[in-house]
Amino acid sequence: MHTDRSKVLLFGSGGVGTIAALNLEVGGHAEVTAVLRSNYKAVKERGFEIASCDHGTLKGWRPTEVVDHVPKASEKQFDYIVCTTKNQPDCPPALTDLIAPAVQPGRTVIVLIQNGLNIEKPVFEAFPNNIVLSGVSMIGSHETEPGVIEHDDNDRVLIGPFHNKNLSTKDEEAAARDFVRIYSAGGKTDCELQLDVNFARWRKLVYNACLNSICALTGLDTGRIRLADGAIDGLVKPAMEEIRAAAKAVGVHLPPDVCDFMINIDPLTMYLPPSMLGDIRKGNFTEFENIVGEPLRVGTALGVPMPTLQVLYHLLQAIQWRTKEARGRVTIPPKGTFVAE
Amino acid sequence: MHTDRSKVLLFGSGGVGTIAALNLEVGGHAEVTAVLRSNYKAVKERGFEIASCDHGTLKGWRPTEVVDHVPKASEKQFDYIVCTTKNQPDCPPALTDLIAPAVQPGRTVIVLIQNGLNIEKPVFEAFPNNIVLSGVSMIGSHETEPGVIEHDDNDRVLIGPFHNKNLSTKDEEAAARDFVRIYSAGGKTDCELQLDVNFARWRKLVYNACLNSICALTGLDTGRIRLADGAIDGLVKPAMEEIRAAAKAVGVHLPPDVCDFMINIDPLTMYLPPSMLGDIRKGNFTEFENIVGEPLRVGTALGVPMPTLQVLYHLLQAIQWRTKEARGRVTIPPKGTFVAE
Repeated sequence: MHTDRSKVLLFGSGGVGTIAALNLEVGGHAEVTAVLRSNYKAVKERGFEIASCDHGTLKGWRPTEVVDHVPKASEKQFDYIVCTTKNQPDCPPALTDLIAPAVQPGRTVIVLIQNGLNIEKPVFEAFPNNIVLSGVSMIGSHETEPGVIEHDDNDRVLIGPFHNKNLSTKDEEAAARDFVRIYSAGGKTDCELQLDVNFARWRKLVYNACLNSICALTGLDTGRIRLADGAIDGLVKPAMEEIRAAAKAVGVHLPPDVCDFMINIDPLTMYLPPSMLGDIRKGNFTEFENIVGEPLRVGTALGVPMPTLQVLYHLLQAIQWRTKEARGRVTIPPKGTFVAE
Repeated sequence: MHTDRSKVLLFGSGGVGTIAALNLEVGGHAEVTAVLRSNYKAVKERGFEIASCDHGTLKGWRPTEVVDHVPKASEKQFDYIVCTTKNQPDCPPALTDLIAPAVQPGRTVIVLIQNGLNIEKPVFEAFPNNIVLSGVSMIGSHETEPGVIEHDDNDRVLIGPFHNKNLSTKDEEAAARDFVRIYSAGGKTDCELQLDVNFARWRKLVYNACLNSICALTGLDTGRIRLADGAIDGLVKPAMEEIRAAAKAVGVHLPPDVCDFMINIDPLTMYLPPSMLGDIRKGNFTEFENIVGEPLRVGTALGVPMPTLQVLYHLLQAIQWRTKEARGRVTIPPKGTFVAE
């Protein structure tokens, strides 16, 4: 074991996280402890089975360590905690509570390779003296069954610091540079430093808040949505222009061609289901609050008209409620009973 | 057989149509020939099995005649053709083509007990000298399997004439009155004359274009949509106000409380799935063009802002495309093939 290897705790080892762990391990500058939940037993017994467009086929692969709970900082110290779970602030427990045992105040760097806007805010609040990095990923990778990863669209990650006014920008940027170094070392990923995190995140929202959410609501993948009557011109483009307008209102200037770029980012006939469509198909919660709700709230607070996003948001909110009911998080009056209203 | 009985051809004997046939037959002033399609074999063999909140339980019930095709007018003459099929102008064949063999120009009265706006236009065009009546139904009735009808919410129908400038209003109104007479004669339905068809249809659109479409898109029934976070205030009410504004623009003044009335029209704990939710759950086409598209086109042409309906329309249009693909009406390039764009 090299003493100069960074110690990384990975929280969330599904499609995105497992490929992140793989990149970190193959570079030789990091050793990864992965916290597994639903796939712990499968991976403990058989390792991961990975079919990756970047790494080829791996059977029985495991990161340095596999655990079923977040280790306490008093037992093991980590340089980085990389969070690659879905982010659903409306569905407790909060990410910050889950990773808290492993966070050393003022020391551990927290990397959020997660979707959406304002995801750093609860992390700043919980850990006000820790550097928090942003990871914007454009990977296509899914866990098809516990421990089985299909990675069919190349890993591309943009890393940069979320600026915390308690901390030195220089230190934050150095941490971002270091993370890019250890993540890229294996040479099988396109991981880049992008210091303008706001730009990176708003740019990805053009895809996520619009194409991802509209695919989720229509049940169409990113290929079919381009073939379906009226969907691109009637829905996707108007929604994307609203995101561009909201971005502009916060000083992020996205070029007009970003919309077409995002619509065509994957070859049509890959027929890829974006993340929220996958979530809904599996009956999982979606990340609609960070992906649609936050940009909508930011934009409308600044007076930007966002009528399309407004409707998409409320539809996704109703579907989230449906999932909550299906999972017993909300209960409804029994059929046929009288309800005073 | 009484010679004064009206001869009625019923086209579409599902949940709505079978109860219409039953009302017409039990009144004793009509004899119904029902054209069956998917349920022909079941009903020919065993009759209908009906559990009705208005008529009680019937087993083996049949109208006067059951046929599997539209009879030719040269073989049998009908006073009325009652159409209770779903109306999907975007999915040929057109209703007018289907009923054409039985229509005697200038004689047969065509009754459209169907949802939506402007449904009379293609009928006027195909049969310019026939009286066309509007039926606005608020029934809750579903065919759960071929020939099995669950009728759980009372039959309420408003009948009135669609005004055709080729014809005498007096004759049109007389036909409407006569149809109400034969439909109501059994005393087990709430069938009323409403000469202001535009008012009746726009009023029902408050329910159909908004609650029905939003339930369809969220997968929630009319009870759950009232319980789900933000759905009524964020979606249903804004959509309903857009319909009210569009109605006002065409001179139909719907009172402000129509929105609350329609939201609460069914007891919450009935958890009723409105028609388009049922359609989508079954993988059937929806009537989104007449229910959402037409009022949207009418309103926006008159300058009414309808941003919510606009989004709902395009989402339903994309889902309709999905159904078309599932049913082989559209084909897509095979997975992994190159598509020039």
